[in-house]
Amino acid sequence: MDRVLLSHGAGGREMAALIEQVFLARYGPAGFRGDDSARLSLGGREVAFTTDAFVVSPIFFPGGDIGGLAVSGTVNDLLTAGARPLALSVSFILEEGLPLATLERLARSMQETAAAAGVEIVTGDTKVVPRGAADQVFITTAGLGEILRPGISGAGVRPGDAVILTGSVGDHGVAVMLARENLLSGREIMSDAAPLTGVILPLLEAGLEVHAMRDPTRGGIAAALNEMARQSGVCLEIAEAQVPVRPAVAAASEALGLDVFQVANEGKMVIILPESQAAAALALLHRHPLSREGRLIGAVVPGPPGRVQVRTALGTTRLLPPPSGELLPRIC
Amino acid sequence: MDRVLLSHGAGGREMAALIEQVFLARYGPAGFRGDDSARLSLGGREVAFTTDAFVVSPIFFPGGDIGGLAVSGTVNDLLTAGARPLALSVSFILEEGLPLATLERLARSMQETAAAAGVEIVTGDTKVVPRGAADQVFITTAGLGEILRPGISGAGVRPGDAVILTGSVGDHGVAVMLARENLLSGREIMSDAAPLTGVILPLLEAGLEVHAMRDPTRGGIAAALNEMARQSGVCLEIAEAQVPVRPAVAAASEALGLDVFQVANEGKMVIILPESQAAAALALLHRHPLSREGRLIGAVVPGPPGRVQVRTALGTTRLLPPPSGELLPRIC
Repeated sequence: MDRVLLSHGAGGREMAALIEQVFLARYGPAGFRGDDSARLSLGGREVAFTTDAFVVSPIFFPGGDIGGLAVSGTVNDLLTAGARPLALSVSFILEEGLPLATLERLARSMQETAAAAGVEIVTGDTKVVPRGAADQVFITTAGLGEILRPGISGAGVRPGDAVILTGSVGDHGVAVMLARENLLSGREIMSDAAPLTGVILPLLEAGLEVHAMRDPTRGGIAAALNEMARQSGVCLEIAEAQVPVRPAVAAASEALGLDVFQVANEGKMVIILPESQAAAALALLHRHPLSREGRLIGAVVPGPPGRVQVRTALGTTRLLPPPSGELLPRIC
Repeated sequence: MDRVLLSHGAGGREMAALIEQVFLARYGPAGFRGDDSARLSLGGREVAFTTDAFVVSPIFFPGGDIGGLAVSGTVNDLLTAGARPLALSVSFILEEGLPLATLERLARSMQETAAAAGVEIVTGDTKVVPRGAADQVFITTAGLGEILRPGISGAGVRPGDAVILTGSVGDHGVAVMLARENLLSGREIMSDAAPLTGVILPLLEAGLEVHAMRDPTRGGIAAALNEMARQSGVCLEIAEAQVPVRPAVAAASEALGLDVFQVANEGKMVIILPESQAAAALALLHRHPLSREGRLIGAVVPGPPGRVQVRTALGTTRLLPPPSGELLPRIC
């Protein structure tokens, strides 16, 4: 294996191995860590800094587009560090021939999403490549946030912690797959892409002792939970019946041969905090439209460090392995 | 004209019009300004924040590669704001099938360039797209810096100011064009891509009253000077004979039908400061290998605001218009 494969970008084991081999080895522990945002000290303040490239295809899909997604994704990554999102940069790579109306529609979507996220787009760049050298439009955002609660990290999970999920899983990935394959989904299946500022900041401002957060994008909640279990050296267990899945999404996932726990979400958060604070967190979450279906889905349990297991409706447990393979290319 | 053209990414008039139409209209004066870096106030400190996408073809060229270029470009943009570069983010868009050895070579180049620039790569992202959906590798960097001297802006040029250029022009663009067309250049023509931290920080630390800086990338010094003249509402004049151009670069530019003043540089800076401080600035510049050929090339002169003119060797003056047209696609 000496070439880049689609699986290297899918958010699963192969991507982790590539990052380990090419980047972590080089930039060292002070550089790329396991978290989605870096933390910097700047003038006595703790600042979160993060970036993501967006290559989703198609660029418009039910419930969203690549522009709003690029804003939401980076805002949500800042939130995982316990940060209030402040400013975004936006870089476009445009294919020659892209209709200007498309670009304007994306710019409008980014503006609206930024306003909803309470963040400002402050700087940008535009490159154009000849026809065929890129597919329509790629957008890379980077974000800056002010850390309100230091120490929130995938490595912060402890015994006694509960696992909360802010809503249903699989919506984004299934919506994009159906749109890509021209399988009409009606209006039942829409991407959940949204910035979660209004969902997460109240938890932090209320002083809840959030230990870890992860937005379950590529690789779904399977990837997010496995990353945190591994980083923290704990065993996590979730109850299958507690994870909300819309019936249409469940049916489409099965038809497409996907494990819905591995499917990308773009407007959800996995929140881990002491079990004693779970009820308070849920009460706050239920006040916001984007987290009305928030639920306690699991907890840290005794077991091998780094393991994630699922308690089924029958009361048995099965392993939830980190995703591997191609999963869904160009899902975000 | 309702589609994106190559000229929209070329750094000239068409790009300015696109940014004006699609982005500035939307994100407003608090968003995109004329400068390459945004300025933010964060915990009482002034911070510079910038981003650039890199799509250069070929990805390896004499004197550099897309990895080192992506680091240098963003570092130099931070410097234009009078900032000490602190941290970079890096996002890769990889084409399926890219040799891993290529990616490792680029990662190594980025690491070396970051070390030379005194900046840390702290966070990143990797996406993979199917074969044919991108051309090998695109890299987007964003950067954070701490502003040492506030108020440096393309809008800061005043009467009585001198224009300094840190070295020869045209090297990067011509080197890339020759490499792309498989025209061997021997070792005479190499890209100047380099981070200018060691060139610019001493000027700021010495307390020189730098008013404006611009790294003359896409569109060359013609674009950089026109942008600053327009932003500041002044007339700039440069002396043609004072602008260093390597003979091989001059010859190749002419053969390629290029105006060398419009050709991209990736390791040069245009510095504008009071004429009375020009000698002190040059003395500092001449101590650093990357600015040994630094020269006073011009000044603010009486004339129409926004105009840039060139005094020829014959003593006549001609207009130096902002570049327009396709220029050199995928030069950075």
